[in-house]
Amino acid sequence: MAFDPASLKYDDKGLIPAIAQSPEGEVLMMAWMNAEAVARTLETGKVTYWSRSRKSFWVKGETSGHTQKLIDLRIDCDRDCILVICEQEGAACHTMRRNCFYTSVISGDEVELMKPMV
Amino acid sequence: MAFDPASLKYDDKGLIPAIAQSPEGEVLMMAWMNAEAVARTLETGKVTYWSRSRKSFWVKGETSGHTQKLIDLRIDCDRDCILVICEQEGAACHTMRRNCFYTSVISGDEVELMKPMV
Repeated sequence: MAFDPASLKYDDKGLIPAIAQSPEGEVLMMAWMNAEAVARTLETGKVTYWSRSRKSFWVKGETSGHTQKLIDLRIDCDRDCILVICEQEGAACHTMRRNCFYTSVISGDEVELMKPMV
Repeated sequence: MAFDPASLKYDDKGLIPAIAQSPEGEVLMMAWMNAEAVARTLETGKVTYWSRSRKSFWVKGETSGHTQKLIDLRIDCDRDCILVICEQEGAACHTMRRNCFYTSVISGDEVELMKPMV
Protein backbone atom coordinates (compact mmCIF):
# COMPACT_ATOMS: atom_id res chain seq x y z
CA MET A 1 0.00 0.00 0.00
CA ALA A 2 1.35 3.41 -0.94
CA PHE A 3 2.18 5.54 2.09
CA ASP A 4 0.56 8.94 2.40
CA PRO A 5 1.79 11.22 5.23
CA ALA A 6 -1.72 12.70 5.41
CA SER A 7 -3.02 9.28 6.50
CA LEU A 8 -1.30 9.55 9.89
CA LYS A 9 -3.15 10.86 12.94
CA TYR A 10 -1.94 14.27 14.00
CA ASP A 11 -2.88 16.12 17.19
CA ASP A 12 -4.93 19.32 17.28
CA LYS A 13 -1.76 21.26 16.36
CA GLY A 14 -1.14 19.03 13.32
CA LEU A 15 1.80 17.27 14.98
CA ILE A 16 2.82 13.66 15.61
CA PRO A 17 5.52 12.49 18.05
CA ALA A 18 8.63 11.03 16.41
CA ILE A 19 11.08 8.86 18.35
CA ALA A 20 14.63 8.74 16.99
CA GLN A 21 16.59 5.54 17.61
CA SER A 22 20.05 4.45 16.54
CA PRO A 23 20.46 1.18 14.60
CA GLU A 24 22.07 -0.23 17.76
CA GLY A 25 18.86 0.40 19.73
CA GLU A 26 19.69 3.59 21.61
CA VAL A 27 16.70 5.91 21.96
CA LEU A 28 18.24 9.25 21.02
CA MET A 29 15.44 11.83 21.37
CA MET A 30 11.78 12.54 20.83
CA ALA A 31 10.55 15.49 18.79
CA TRP A 32 7.57 16.38 16.62
CA MET A 33 6.76 16.26 12.93
CA ASN A 34 3.92 17.59 10.86
CA ALA A 35 2.83 15.93 7.60
CA GLU A 36 5.24 18.01 5.53
CA ALA A 37 8.16 17.13 7.85
CA VAL A 38 7.32 13.43 7.41
CA ALA A 39 7.29 13.90 3.63
CA ARG A 40 10.57 15.83 3.64
CA THR A 41 12.24 13.22 5.86
CA LEU A 42 11.31 10.49 3.40
CA GLU A 43 12.23 12.53 0.31
CA THR A 44 15.58 13.83 1.51
CA GLY A 45 16.74 11.09 3.90
CA LYS A 46 17.53 13.89 6.35
CA VAL A 47 15.42 13.56 9.49
CA THR A 48 13.33 16.73 9.65
CA TYR A 49 11.16 17.82 12.56
CA TRP A 50 8.82 20.71 13.21
CA SER A 51 10.21 23.02 15.87
CA ARG A 52 7.35 24.02 18.15
CA SER A 53 9.38 26.84 19.71
CA ARG A 54 10.67 28.32 16.45
CA LYS A 55 7.54 27.39 14.49
CA SER A 56 9.62 26.23 11.54
CA PHE A 57 11.03 23.11 9.93
CA TRP A 58 14.05 21.77 11.73
CA VAL A 59 16.42 19.72 9.63
CA LYS A 60 18.23 18.03 12.49
CA GLY A 61 21.90 19.01 12.56
CA GLU A 62 21.64 21.61 9.79
CA THR A 63 23.42 24.20 11.91
CA SER A 64 25.15 21.98 14.52
CA GLY A 65 26.35 19.29 12.12
CA HIS A 66 24.67 16.69 14.33
CA THR A 67 22.63 15.26 11.51
CA GLN A 68 20.35 12.23 11.46
CA LYS A 69 20.48 10.12 8.31
CA LEU A 70 17.28 8.17 7.81
CA ILE A 71 17.58 4.40 7.75
CA ASP A 72 13.98 3.36 8.35
CA LEU A 73 10.74 5.16 9.14
CA ARG A 74 8.12 3.12 10.99
CA ILE A 75 4.60 3.95 12.08
CA ASP A 76 2.73 2.44 14.97
CA CYS A 77 -0.52 0.46 15.08
CA ASP A 78 -2.64 3.54 15.81
CA ARG A 79 -0.80 5.64 13.20
CA ASP A 80 -0.24 8.33 15.82
CA CYS A 81 3.46 7.85 16.53
CA ILE A 82 6.58 7.49 14.36
CA LEU A 83 9.80 5.61 15.02
CA VAL A 84 12.76 6.89 13.03
CA ILE A 85 15.78 4.61 12.84
CA CYS A 86 18.70 6.84 11.92
CA GLU A 87 22.45 7.26 11.90
CA GLN A 88 23.21 10.01 14.41
CA GLU A 89 26.25 12.18 13.77
CA GLY A 90 27.71 13.22 17.13
CA ALA A 91 25.36 14.28 19.91
CA ALA A 92 21.59 14.01 19.47
CA CYS A 93 20.98 16.22 22.50
CA HIS A 94 21.44 19.99 22.58
CA THR A 95 23.35 19.49 25.86
CA MET A 96 26.01 17.69 23.76
CA ARG A 97 25.13 14.32 25.17
CA ARG A 98 24.76 11.34 22.86
CA ASN A 99 21.06 11.09 23.77
CA CYS A 100 18.49 13.18 25.64
CA PHE A 101 17.52 10.54 28.23
CA TYR A 102 20.54 10.91 30.49
CA THR A 103 18.63 11.36 33.73
CA SER A 104 17.42 8.28 35.59
CA VAL A 105 15.11 8.20 38.59
CA ILE A 106 16.74 5.81 41.04
CA SER A 107 15.26 5.25 44.51
CA GLY A 108 13.45 8.58 44.27
CA ASP A 109 16.47 10.60 43.20
CA GLU A 110 17.51 12.01 39.84
CA VAL A 111 20.82 10.53 38.74
CA GLU A 112 22.85 11.75 35.75
CA LEU A 113 23.87 8.75 33.65
CA MET A 114 25.96 10.46 31.00
CA LYS A 115 28.29 13.44 30.63
CA PRO A 116 28.39 15.76 27.62
CA MET A 117 30.64 14.71 24.74
CA VAL A 118 33.69 16.95 24.46
CA MET B 1 18.15 15.63 43.78
CA ALA B 2 14.81 14.20 44.84
CA PHE B 3 12.52 13.52 41.91
CA ASP B 4 9.08 15.13 41.90
CA PRO B 5 6.65 14.03 39.16
CA ALA B 6 5.15 17.53 39.28
CA SER B 7 8.48 18.93 38.06
CA LEU B 8 8.00 17.42 34.60
CA LYS B 9 6.50 19.43 31.75
CA TYR B 10 3.04 18.25 30.81
CA ASP B 11 1.00 19.37 27.83
CA ASP B 12 -2.20 21.38 28.04
CA LYS B 13 -4.06 18.15 28.89
CA GLY B 14 -1.66 17.37 31.75
CA LEU B 15 0.01 14.55 29.79
CA ILE B 16 3.58 13.61 28.89
CA PRO B 17 4.62 11.08 26.22
CA ALA B 18 6.20 7.89 27.57
CA ILE B 19 8.25 5.58 25.35
CA ALA B 20 8.49 1.96 26.49
CA GLN B 21 11.65 0.08 25.55
CA SER B 22 12.83 -3.44 26.34
CA PRO B 23 16.23 -3.93 28.04
CA GLU B 24 17.44 -5.33 24.71
CA GLY B 25 16.69 -2.01 22.99
CA GLU B 26 13.39 -2.76 21.25
CA VAL B 27 11.01 0.22 21.23
CA LEU B 28 7.75 -1.40 22.27
CA MET B 29 5.15 1.37 22.24
CA MET B 30 4.43 4.99 23.07
CA ALA B 31 1.63 6.07 25.36
CA TRP B 32 0.84 8.89 27.75
CA MET B 33 1.18 9.50 31.48
CA ASN B 34 -0.04 12.18 33.81
CA ALA B 35 1.80 13.09 37.01
CA GLU B 36 -0.13 10.54 39.04
CA ALA B 37 0.63 7.78 36.51
CA VAL B 38 4.34 8.64 36.76
CA ALA B 39 4.11 8.42 40.57
CA ARG B 40 2.20 5.12 40.47
CA THR B 41 4.69 3.61 37.99
CA LEU B 42 7.56 4.44 40.34
CA GLU B 43 5.73 3.30 43.47
CA THR B 44 4.38 0.01 42.16
CA GLY B 45 6.98 -0.97 39.55
CA LYS B 46 4.03 -1.66 37.21
CA VAL B 47 4.14 0.66 34.20
CA THR B 48 0.95 2.72 34.37
CA TYR B 49 -0.32 5.06 31.66
CA TRP B 50 -3.25 7.41 31.34
CA SER B 51 -5.71 6.15 28.75
CA ARG B 52 -6.88 9.13 26.71
CA SER B 53 -9.78 7.17 25.19
CA ARG B 54 -11.02 5.66 28.45
CA LYS B 55 -10.00 8.68 30.54
CA SER B 56 -8.67 6.43 33.29
CA PHE B 57 -5.44 4.98 34.62
CA TRP B 58 -4.20 2.07 32.56
CA VAL B 59 -2.00 -0.41 34.39
CA LYS B 60 -0.48 -2.01 31.32
CA GLY B 61 -1.44 -5.67 31.06
CA GLU B 62 -3.85 -5.61 34.00
CA THR B 63 -6.55 -7.27 31.94
CA SER B 64 -4.49 -8.84 29.10
CA GLY B 65 -1.66 -10.15 31.26
CA HIS B 66 0.79 -8.31 29.00
CA THR B 67 2.38 -6.43 31.86
CA GLN B 68 5.38 -4.13 31.85
CA LYS B 69 7.68 -4.42 34.86
CA LEU B 70 9.64 -1.24 35.43
CA ILE B 71 13.40 -1.50 35.24
CA ASP B 72 14.39 2.14 34.81
CA LEU B 73 12.51 5.40 34.33
CA ARG B 74 14.42 8.15 32.53
CA ILE B 75 13.50 11.72 31.70
CA ASP B 76 14.81 13.78 28.84
CA CYS B 77 16.76 17.05 28.80
CA ASP B 78 13.63 19.17 28.41
CA ARG B 79 11.71 17.15 31.03
CA ASP B 80 8.86 16.74 28.54
CA CYS B 81 9.33 13.08 27.58
CA ILE B 82 9.84 9.85 29.54
CA LEU B 83 11.70 6.70 28.56
CA VAL B 84 10.57 3.60 30.44
CA ILE B 85 12.87 0.60 30.29
CA CYS B 86 10.72 -2.39 31.17
CA GLU B 87 10.32 -6.15 30.98
CA GLN B 88 7.45 -6.78 28.60
CA GLU B 89 5.34 -9.88 29.18
CA GLY B 90 4.09 -11.13 25.80
CA ALA B 91 2.86 -8.62 23.25
CA ALA B 92 3.13 -4.88 23.90
CA CYS B 93 0.72 -4.12 21.05
CA HIS B 94 -3.04 -4.62 21.18
CA THR B 95 -2.73 -6.33 17.76
CA MET B 96 -0.78 -9.07 19.58
CA ARG B 97 2.48 -8.08 18.03
CA ARG B 98 5.59 -7.81 20.17
CA ASN B 99 5.79 -4.06 19.48
CA CYS B 100 3.56 -1.41 17.90
CA PHE B 101 6.02 -0.24 15.22
CA TYR B 102 5.54 -3.14 12.81
CA THR B 103 4.88 -1.03 9.71
CA SER B 104 7.82 0.32 7.76
CA VAL B 105 7.72 2.80 4.91
CA ILE B 106 9.96 1.35 2.20
CA SER B 107 10.30 3.05 -1.19
CA GLY B 108 6.98 4.80 -0.64
CA ASP B 109 5.04 1.69 0.37
CA GLU B 110 3.84 0.44 3.73
CA VAL B 111 5.40 -2.92 4.54
CA GLU B 112 4.40 -5.13 7.47
CA LEU B 113 7.51 -6.25 9.33
CA MET B 114 5.99 -8.53 11.92
CA LYS B 115 3.06 -10.89 12.34
CA PRO B 116 0.92 -11.20 15.47
CA MET B 117 2.16 -13.61 18.13
CA VAL B 118 -0.05 -16.68 18.36
